[in-house]
Amino acid sequence: MTMMTAGQYEESLRRLNLVVYMFGKRIENVVDDPIIRPSMNAVAKTYELAHHPEHEDIMTATSHITGNTINRFTHIHQSIEDLVKKSKMGRLLGRETGCCFQRCVGMDALNALSIVTFDIDAKHGTEYYTRFVKYLEYVQENDFTVDGAMTDPKGDRSLPPHKQPDPDQFMHVVEEKKDGIVVRGAKAHQTGAVNSHEIIIMPTLSMREEDKDYAISFALPSDAEGITYIMGRQSCDTRKLEGGTMDQGNLLFGGHEALVVFDDVFVPWDRVFMLKEYEFSRQLVEQFAAYHRQSYACKVGVGDVLIGAAQTAAEYNGVEKASHIRDKIVEMNHLNETLYCGCIACASEGHKEPSGTYCVNILLANVHKHNVTRFPYEISRLAQDIAGGLMVTLPSEKDLQSPETAKWLKKYFKAHRDIPTEHRMHILRLIENLTLGTAATSYLTESMHGAGSPQAQRIMISRRINMQEKQRAAKKLCGIDET
Amino acid sequence: MTMMTAGQYEESLRRLNLVVYMFGKRIENVVDDPIIRPSMNAVAKTYELAHHPEHEDIMTATSHITGNTINRFTHIHQSIEDLVKKSKMGRLLGRETGCCFQRCVGMDALNALSIVTFDIDAKHGTEYYTRFVKYLEYVQENDFTVDGAMTDPKGDRSLPPHKQPDPDQFMHVVEEKKDGIVVRGAKAHQTGAVNSHEIIIMPTLSMREEDKDYAISFALPSDAEGITYIMGRQSCDTRKLEGGTMDQGNLLFGGHEALVVFDDVFVPWDRVFMLKEYEFSRQLVEQFAAYHRQSYACKVGVGDVLIGAAQTAAEYNGVEKASHIRDKIVEMNHLNETLYCGCIACASEGHKEPSGTYCVNILLANVHKHNVTRFPYEISRLAQDIAGGLMVTLPSEKDLQSPETAKWLKKYFKAHRDIPTEHRMHILRLIENLTLGTAATSYLTESMHGAGSPQAQRIMISRRINMQEKQRAAKKLCGIDET
Amino acid sequence: MTMMTAGQYEESLRRLNLVVYMFGKRIENVVDDPIIRPSMNAVAKTYELAHHPEHEDIMTATSHITGNTINRFTHIHQSIEDLVKKSKMGRLLGRETGCCFQRCVGMDALNALSIVTFDIDAKHGTEYYTRFVKYLEYVQENDFTVDGAMTDPKGDRSLPPHKQPDPDQFMHVVEEKKDGIVVRGAKAHQTGAVNSHEIIIMPTLSMREEDKDYAISFALPSDAEGITYIMGRQSCDTRKLEGGTMDQGNLLFGGHEALVVFDDVFVPWDRVFMLKEYEFSRQLVEQFAAYHRQSYACKVGVGDVLIGAAQTAAEYNGVEKASHIRDKIVEMNHLNETLYCGCIACASEGHKEPSGTYCVNILLANVHKHNVTRFPYEISRLAQDIAGGLMVTLPSEKDLQSPETAKWLKKYFKAHRDIPTEHRMHILRLIENLTLGTAATSYLTESMHGAGSPQAQRIMISRRINMQEKQRAAKKLCGIDET
Amino acid sequence: MTMMTAGQYEESLRRLNLVVYMFGKRIENVVDDPIIRPSMNAVAKTYELAHHPEHEDIMTATSHITGNTINRFTHIHQSIEDLVKKSKMGRLLGRETGCCFQRCVGMDALNALSIVTFDIDAKHGTEYYTRFVKYLEYVQENDFTVDGAMTDPKGDRSLPPHKQPDPDQFMHVVEEKKDGIVVRGAKAHQTGAVNSHEIIIMPTLSMREEDKDYAISFALPSDAEGITYIMGRQSCDTRKLEGGTMDQGNLLFGGHEALVVFDDVFVPWDRVFMLKEYEFSRQLVEQFAAYHRQSYACKVGVGDVLIGAAQTAAEYNGVEKASHIRDKIVEMNHLNETLYCGCIACASEGHKEPSGTYCVNILLANVHKHNVTRFPYEISRLAQDIAGGLMVTLPSEKDLQSPETAKWLKKYFKAHRDIPTEHRMHILRLIENLTLGTAATSYLTESMHGAGSPQAQRIMISRRINMQEKQRAAKKLCGIDET
Repeated sequence: MTMMTAGQYEESLRRLNLVVYMFGKRIENVVDDPIIRPSMNAVAKTYELAHHPEHEDIMTATSHITGNTINRFTHIHQSIEDLVKKSKMGRLLGRETGCCFQRCVGMDALNALSIVTFDIDAKHGTEYYTRFVKYLEYVQENDFTVDGAMTDPKGDRSLPPHKQPDPDQFMHVVEEKKDGIVVRGAKAHQTGAVNSHEIIIMPTLSMREEDKDYAISFALPSDAEGITYIMGRQSCDTRKLEGGTMDQGNLLFGGHEALVVFDDVFVPWDRVFMLKEYEFSRQLVEQFAAYHRQSYACKVGVGDVLIGAAQTAAEYNGVEKASHIRDKIVEMNHLNETLYCGCIACASEGHKEPSGTYCVNILLANVHKHNVTRFPYEISRLAQDIAGGLMVTLPSEKDLQSPETAKWLKKYFKAHRDIPTEHRMHILRLIENLTLGTAATSYLTESMHGAGSPQAQRIMISRRINMQEKQRAAKKLCGIDET
Repeated sequence: MTMMTAGQYEESLRRLNLVVYMFGKRIENVVDDPIIRPSMNAVAKTYELAHHPEHEDIMTATSHITGNTINRFTHIHQSIEDLVKKSKMGRLLGRETGCCFQRCVGMDALNALSIVTFDIDAKHGTEYYTRFVKYLEYVQENDFTVDGAMTDPKGDRSLPPHKQPDPDQFMHVVEEKKDGIVVRGAKAHQTGAVNSHEIIIMPTLSMREEDKDYAISFALPSDAEGITYIMGRQSCDTRKLEGGTMDQGNLLFGGHEALVVFDDVFVPWDRVFMLKEYEFSRQLVEQFAAYHRQSYACKVGVGDVLIGAAQTAAEYNGVEKASHIRDKIVEMNHLNETLYCGCIACASEGHKEPSGTYCVNILLANVHKHNVTRFPYEISRLAQDIAGGLMVTLPSEKDLQSPETAKWLKKYFKAHRDIPTEHRMHILRLIENLTLGTAATSYLTESMHGAGSPQAQRIMISRRINMQEKQRAAKKLCGIDET
Repeated sequence: MTMMTAGQYEESLRRLNLVVYMFGKRIENVVDDPIIRPSMNAVAKTYELAHHPEHEDIMTATSHITGNTINRFTHIHQSIEDLVKKSKMGRLLGRETGCCFQRCVGMDALNALSIVTFDIDAKHGTEYYTRFVKYLEYVQENDFTVDGAMTDPKGDRSLPPHKQPDPDQFMHVVEEKKDGIVVRGAKAHQTGAVNSHEIIIMPTLSMREEDKDYAISFALPSDAEGITYIMGRQSCDTRKLEGGTMDQGNLLFGGHEALVVFDDVFVPWDRVFMLKEYEFSRQLVEQFAAYHRQSYACKVGVGDVLIGAAQTAAEYNGVEKASHIRDKIVEMNHLNETLYCGCIACASEGHKEPSGTYCVNILLANVHKHNVTRFPYEISRLAQDIAGGLMVTLPSEKDLQSPETAKWLKKYFKAHRDIPTEHRMHILRLIENLTLGTAATSYLTESMHGAGSPQAQRIMISRRINMQEKQRAAKKLCGIDET
Repeated sequence: MTMMTAGQYEESLRRLNLVVYMFGKRIENVVDDPIIRPSMNAVAKTYELAHHPEHEDIMTATSHITGNTINRFTHIHQSIEDLVKKSKMGRLLGRETGCCFQRCVGMDALNALSIVTFDIDAKHGTEYYTRFVKYLEYVQENDFTVDGAMTDPKGDRSLPPHKQPDPDQFMHVVEEKKDGIVVRGAKAHQTGAVNSHEIIIMPTLSMREEDKDYAISFALPSDAEGITYIMGRQSCDTRKLEGGTMDQGNLLFGGHEALVVFDDVFVPWDRVFMLKEYEFSRQLVEQFAAYHRQSYACKVGVGDVLIGAAQTAAEYNGVEKASHIRDKIVEMNHLNETLYCGCIACASEGHKEPSGTYCVNILLANVHKHNVTRFPYEISRLAQDIAGGLMVTLPSEKDLQSPETAKWLKKYFKAHRDIPTEHRMHILRLIENLTLGTAATSYLTESMHGAGSPQAQRIMISRRINMQEKQRAAKKLCGIDET
């Protein structure tokens, strides 16, 4: 078996023995927890669509190791076409789930490591790449979901890792043993962590020699001993506990993020992919970041959902033909497709690395992600404009069930004679979900900070621009001869 | 007694017999309901600050009827200075509550009616103004909170009131009796409805003769027989039920909005302020809207809170000196003060109406509100940028109390050596509250639609501009002589 | 005579003996030079309108020294009302001239000096204020146009004045004599310099003790010996030499800016208003800058012209009813009126200084000017959108006169059956003038840099905000107790 | 010879006998006219770079007709790679010329006709495609510059062609002869018209049967009898007559646009590509527009120049390390690269048409062009911010040559000790040229209206979006079942 079905995926998660806390209590049954389950459903969609004939071109790939058909989320990009399909896969899943489907982070970690382990070996004569390829085959053959973990807590932002008052603010080696290493630290904001079979750790920033104990990369099963997950809460998370079919907005899907604590966890040598080669930490960060910034293609798909919802709300409100409404819909689409241009362009302008892996154009991937920190907010604002104020003053679905209030809601929230009031309420709850609720945390705030905050992209843009060429051209045109 | 204390206000509410539904059930004790209470607290702040010497200049006024010192929220503006103080009062209360304090809508209704009842009488020889002044004195002497209710459900947006399939989609007279009238309909999005002693009804749009039964204005006690309130729910509303002191973000204050249903309610003649004088409905709408658009001065105060929170988060994160952070803080302030300029300018450019009431400059009030539909969204985006991703991945406060998880949270979410982790969590929860949670519904969505959606302001701007003057100037300068 | 007519103003200029260079040659007759004359016409408008009964309330004031009626441009603001009228005067003249009318800079210098000379005297027991008031009376009685000169060339931006390789990069005292001082240096970007009777010099930045020789302020007749003017050129300046009545866009008015060189110029003591009191240089800079940032009220008037021109172009093109055109016109107005709110609010929130002079609210004046660095660019972009591409592909007016080409132009550039093609060409040339031509240098670039570049306003906004108050409010609301 | 050198191109133009008017007079020697010559230089660059080995991959292609190496500007795109290279060619030439190089419009016309003539033949059994291919070979073998002419004067915008009071407001057939047709009308805004060997006419909008006489497409030599060119004037055009080497900003290159009048011109049958097949006019318009909207890739190259100039100005001013300057440079680059993403993505998402020609993704090409109507204005605004006010107050270069003024300019405009004042003046003049002068007409206004005004793109975006798919996704996620 190289590709699990959604059902097999769910079952495989049940076999894990994760230590997960939420609201101060240990979660015994992670898979069926009503707050976590929608996020599992979203990951499951990445398995399900791989079996749909109309999506298989996008969702699957041929392993360059085994030649087997595999889920694209476990694939190492072998061509420009692969990179472009990755962007399209992100948009597709964003549209089908309306949220963060979490699985891209592992794909991006695998691809980044395929490049960097190769380059480390080329310089140091190490064997990381061999190890990595073996591990990759294991992931591909088992069709695992992998959490790619980069962000350390960081403690005092003004200090490098080795100068932190608490040395654990960055993940580090605390012991080297005969059969492996022992690590300590934590990774914050881990998307989809408790829906993953594996977790890959990478350093969070460029490091110097003094920080070499922090320049480490490795993989572990998600339920390795010593790993603890503490779930982050989201806006409107507890609506999922209310047992209805309306107020949560998105009835099936969601995302989650967790703090993952590593309390002296043992990593066997065959899962160690970088150890103290600090001079490669910057490359690993930038490579992973570039791939992951491309991955924000998914927000184009979520944007599709929000645009579709806004158009539907306009129709239900009976105002879809007003010129200002049509103009706002065009603007939402224009911004959303501008984002699409970014994730396509950074892919189509990709290149081959020495390892054979294809990498996106790093400048354009950063430009793309930087727009993602802006446009979803404006699309969201326009959606709220179109939706109308009812979106935030709508009574609960229980009021729609109670005989004393249902009659008033059905009477007074009816706008279009052919549309049931319930439909109008459903679509407004979806817009609320995407602009204020659980999905807003990913469509907005995660768009801001995921794969690096805006300033990180600005620094990369600054570094990757060929300013000399621009200045040469300008000086020549106006007659400045500096020789 | 002309000015209640906050305590007296709370007690006065307990004496009301309101019919309120929420989550499908009737609320027996409205004042102490944990979801509603924070909104009551916010209104109570308008009473409390009127007794603070440092705020009395802003918070109180001298009644032009009785000469008594009254709460400014019951005052009819007698000068430009009054109008300017109204804007400053809004900012003050926005800053002290961090939410919608709900009481301005009644003040704006009273002022609009003081103008329009006078003008109707001047044309029709009616006695609305006399009635109104008597009612006003009653409100001032009792220091009532008044809900000013304008927005009808509207049904099919393409049809005028009298052509609606359901005639109740707009509030209308169903019977004229000897001692008064009977009305039927509903008002949606009623801010602070269940914290009010009185409710004033106004028509929702400009009407023609065929719609004269809908051209009505009147006042009622909030607990008049036949009135039902159905509470709207807000993002994260149920966090208030969790019993903590952190996750709700704003620990004391909130807002609420409700659907108010009038099921054949009787209004005695002395509380009827307009009846079928359809040609004045447009004036009443525009006058109320102009005052109420000015009232969005409050969002400048909420902006103050969000800016203060963002600056604090930056300090707690240890990044407040980074140039990009400082620049974003400046931008937030610049936008917020630009809003302030709008609410000050429309006041200082106000004028005296025939009734003696001072009215804001209608063009500039619309310009101000239109900026309110934009800048809070950008200020909010910048706040999320500064806050960092932790704002949406933070575990619950219960995780901070549980011994198994508290140690990890305190260790790994500590950023600045002198700041307790709890402080950092508190401030992030406040930013979440303002940009995604309960207060986001008022700081963002209500800023969009309250006092009229953006397109309503654009229409008014278009109408109030002196385009002829601009074209005359342009033609003269370039030598076009059309004579 | 305390108020000259436009004609008297022109004659008074003829009596000056200015040393003016342009295109490498000395201008013998400045007043009649075809490139300079339109800028003189614009200043003359400030004299002309003061005699129009409908404008006298705005254009004139009562001198607090003599009680005479004077032109407001020579007035020291005695009330909030004066400050508000100043903003309205700026808008009026911007609308009537469509360009920079140049005279505000002297008004702003006089007002700033009225405050600072008073404060210096209060500290040092000097007599600057007495001198200044005497000088002011002279200016008022003669109704002079005064150039207020602040911007030094600045040389190496990283060095303070006293460390510059060339000490003359900042204006400084080179000799103190019995009867006065000798100064050397230059002032750049001097608006309306050669249309002025007087020039007032102020330091360009905050200074320390080492720079005390640079902390000077004084006034001179514009034709004092040793002063040389070198005219700056503007986009499309030479169209004024072509002798037509169309292609220059604005047929009558323009602005100009010049480099003013002071080559060891003598200043008698009674015209010295600051000498080495370096600790007041910052106050003088900030006070002048605040007044002058308010003065960008004028751009609202220029915006009126551009909006009027865009509307006219739309009508001539026959597209004024298209919803997207109407929407763009609304947006232009909205932005323009937002600017208006800024210049009104900073005036109406003004305060009285110890000298009795009223000063604008410095925070809001900076906020206003900062918006001026943005919105005119967007208004201009929208005007170009509405105008259509013909604005930049229109043949010359000579082609309209030549029989071989006139027939084609009249035939093919006719859009609306009732509008002569010439009218359409005229209005397009005006839009070109305002967005690319001579007036664009003031409507756009001067809006950016005049009265300080954007970053200068950001620094002032940062300084003037009460951040402590905002943080206090935020912390209180979320329960942070730092005591 | 299939590829001319720049010199051969210039000589070939001398052999034309064009009827060109400018400033009301016939131009006898077009090639050497100082106002026109810079535009010829820019076109010549398209010939020159095709012979540079480092650019030949981008600048040349292999003809699918003859197999010869040809200039890409005469090529029919045979692959996605061809489309991508077209975008890169546009950026390259924009950067090397800093202006509009004019030749893309013919390339786009040829490609659009290659598709549409094929499709007409398929429906009507006509022979347009055969004719077209023969003509294409002629263009390729002679390496001609072709003007693609679409925009008619349009007269009264509310009327279709056949209802215009003046029937010539749209190009139409006035006579059909045995050997060809006679046409009348005009094309406005013709970029590079007098630098072209050939001109291809296309209809300007979608037509109905009543307008079939206007549904025509054909090619003519640019000097065919009956064609008259009237040059449009540009901001600062006459600076080119001043004989200097500084004030024109861009010393070598420019663009031009002209009104082209067809006064009963004969077209032989072998050059007629559409005649009355009105139902294909919309396709031809949309196809040409899509290609031409992609062509605004050139503005990315002009943006490179402006960014390079701004960076250079900052260095010369000595402020390049200030954080706000660096941030603005990043923003300029970010916007410019976002545009690049658009022109790359619409190419890489292209597809093959029945004729074998590859066409860009029409939705994304429109999205790209729509951003071009916005971002260059903001990049320009930021460039003016960085440049400083001196950009619009700088004296003329003659003042730098005159001994009386040169000393002051060299002294007072020196900012950085190692940079000659002349260099600073040169770079500021280039920024003036790009933001206000001759190049601003193309970088700004032509970016707005070229290849269709913004509203045209919005309409196309609206048409090309798959809204049903978005609504399906939204409804499914929130549980709306409409079946």
